[in-house]
Amino acid sequence: MDSAIPLHLRTTRTRHKRVPDDYQPPYPSFVARHKPSVSRVVMAYFGVQYRGAPPAVATHALTWIGERFGAGDAPSHWDRAQYVDQAGYANVISVAYWDDVASFDRWFVSARDGWLGDHRAGEGCGFFIEVIRPSVDTYETLFSSLGRPEGIAVLADDMSGEVQEHAYWGGMRDRIPLSQTSEMAPQGTVRVVRDGSRIRVLAPDNLCLIRSGQDWSDTESGERAMYLDDVEPVLRDGMDFLRDEGTAIGCYANRYVDVVAADGGKTEKSYGMSWWKSLAALERWAESHPTHVRIFGAAMKYLSTLGPAAKLRLYHEVTVVRADEQYFEYLNCHRQTGLLNAADLGTESAG
Amino acid sequence: MDSAIPLHLRTTRTRHKRVPDDYQPPYPSFVARHKPSVSRVVMAYFGVQYRGAPPAVATHALTWIGERFGAGDAPSHWDRAQYVDQAGYANVISVAYWDDVASFDRWFVSARDGWLGDHRAGEGCGFFIEVIRPSVDTYETLFSSLGRPEGIAVLADDMSGEVQEHAYWGGMRDRIPLSQTSEMAPQGTVRVVRDGSRIRVLAPDNLCLIRSGQDWSDTESGERAMYLDDVEPVLRDGMDFLRDEGTAIGCYANRYVDVVAADGGKTEKSYGMSWWKSLAALERWAESHPTHVRIFGAAMKYLSTLGPAAKLRLYHEVTVVRADEQYFEYLNCHRQTGLLNAADLGTESAG
Repeated sequence: MDSAIPLHLRTTRTRHKRVPDDYQPPYPSFVARHKPSVSRVVMAYFGVQYRGAPPAVATHALTWIGERFGAGDAPSHWDRAQYVDQAGYANVISVAYWDDVASFDRWFVSARDGWLGDHRAGEGCGFFIEVIRPSVDTYETLFSSLGRPEGIAVLADDMSGEVQEHAYWGGMRDRIPLSQTSEMAPQGTVRVVRDGSRIRVLAPDNLCLIRSGQDWSDTESGERAMYLDDVEPVLRDGMDFLRDEGTAIGCYANRYVDVVAADGGKTEKSYGMSWWKSLAALERWAESHPTHVRIFGAAMKYLSTLGPAAKLRLYHEVTVVRADEQYFEYLNCHRQTGLLNAADLGTESAG
Repeated sequence: MDSAIPLHLRTTRTRHKRVPDDYQPPYPSFVARHKPSVSRVVMAYFGVQYRGAPPAVATHALTWIGERFGAGDAPSHWDRAQYVDQAGYANVISVAYWDDVASFDRWFVSARDGWLGDHRAGEGCGFFIEVIRPSVDTYETLFSSLGRPEGIAVLADDMSGEVQEHAYWGGMRDRIPLSQTSEMAPQGTVRVVRDGSRIRVLAPDNLCLIRSGQDWSDTESGERAMYLDDVEPVLRDGMDFLRDEGTAIGCYANRYVDVVAADGGKTEKSYGMSWWKSLAALERWAESHPTHVRIFGAAMKYLSTLGPAAKLRLYHEVTVVRADEQYFEYLNCHRQTGLLNAADLGTESAG
């Protein structure tokens, strides 16, 4: 049985994991393994926001950034997703991943200006950028099956064998290498710096991001019906709760999005992506909110029964981010967009 | 907000609790507080087992031990419960609590002989004794409301204010003072020492006992129907699972019993009482078994909504027991009785 924490990131513990050394999970799960030379990665979300049908500005912007993702210092992987948010706006989000920060830094300067530079101000669409650049000891991944990596795991050198730290409450924390020595407690508050119509958000230390996805494209008949009829509506309830009522429990923002195919068509993949005040706040929601408890219970039962035979693929990536590893910028976006949803826009300071 | 761990039992931690210091539980719960002078308690279960209607031997034995519970060095509290076990035998269990071990020791010598001494061998009933004498830093209690203590809490000096360590997975462990410094891992195996038809069981270090009870006597109309129709059947499913399939997951024995009134009549109270290989095994079941997850979810929702207005009363006591704090003795009992259920009776040593 593997540990989720790779050998080169193991350290003398000052904090214990939640299960004993002889713990045996009831079904297999796997984590992404980077080369030991990778010390830091970049996860960058580029959003465009509009009402109704896509305006030409949005279409052009999406084409433009797609080309940038293929140019010099390009990300190792990117994908695109879309959803209609609580204010009725369509949002298209392109997510890109690097495992070379210097490469990202070179790429980002002109990409940032192109995506939401001053020329965007009068174009009528909202644009945003949400970037984190975490150290490899501050995030974890989890996959219910092998063979189809998603997100940051596409950049990984390999996948682990079956890991021990999963299928119990607290496994998420135990998979993050930094949990060996740190509580990863939040520090500070959400602050806003306004520069005209442009808003930068400065979020607390140890802000937490989860991207949690499902891929039902391989499921058939009974399993497909089970996912679409029984699981997905419950998942959606949980996602809606986080979107609409999350701030009271430390969820700054939640997006439940449909992955878009490379040709712009539909896929049978979705993910929830949410920003949290802390890993602890995410843990509490996951453990106590009826919708997520039902999801977890269903997944436990399902995967315990089917194991590797399950065709439904589940994965997630969870990151705890230091304040100096974050970049949030919003232009012409409504107040419930991303971290703006957690900011008190009446008390921002001038940039 | 109180801590479940009383001031005089707090110590420099080498192990962290599972929630941050600013954690706020979603509903109130309370724990029993002994006088600081109490260092150890005794929890003693005396069982009689028979098929069908109570034989005179059983009736006399129950009357006899009831009188002993009122005699010199008597327990501070006792109660009685009954159930029909998986082998079809009726079991009547009298549970007594002391907070003075010397007093118990004086009391126990003749009580043990009277309960299952050699004169019982030919009487046709089964008799058993299960005693633990834990240090106060190795157990915890939890009550959903004040005013009606049960079990060991009847001996307490007082109840706490609202405590922080509850309503999350891991709260049980965090309430046990020894968790500040110890994993409380199990050591050793179940062994059996036979002396004629009498069997002593020697259980592992850090064996775990839970008594988890409910009292629906104050509930009315809708709340009563909710408990009896929605909650109790799910609870019973979980109790049956532990009784019939528990050994595979570290539950050595489970009894789901009805409390008997002082006059022998029925009550509207029940409790589950189970012996576990370890606190960790109990944690894993509680967190992952569908029946318990449903119970926990229902209780969370229910108590979060009703809070102190709930008329259903829930409580439990959970103890981790060192090997030298245990005493298990069975006479004429079937093989699935108590810890015999976990013992390999083909390989016992002679006493």
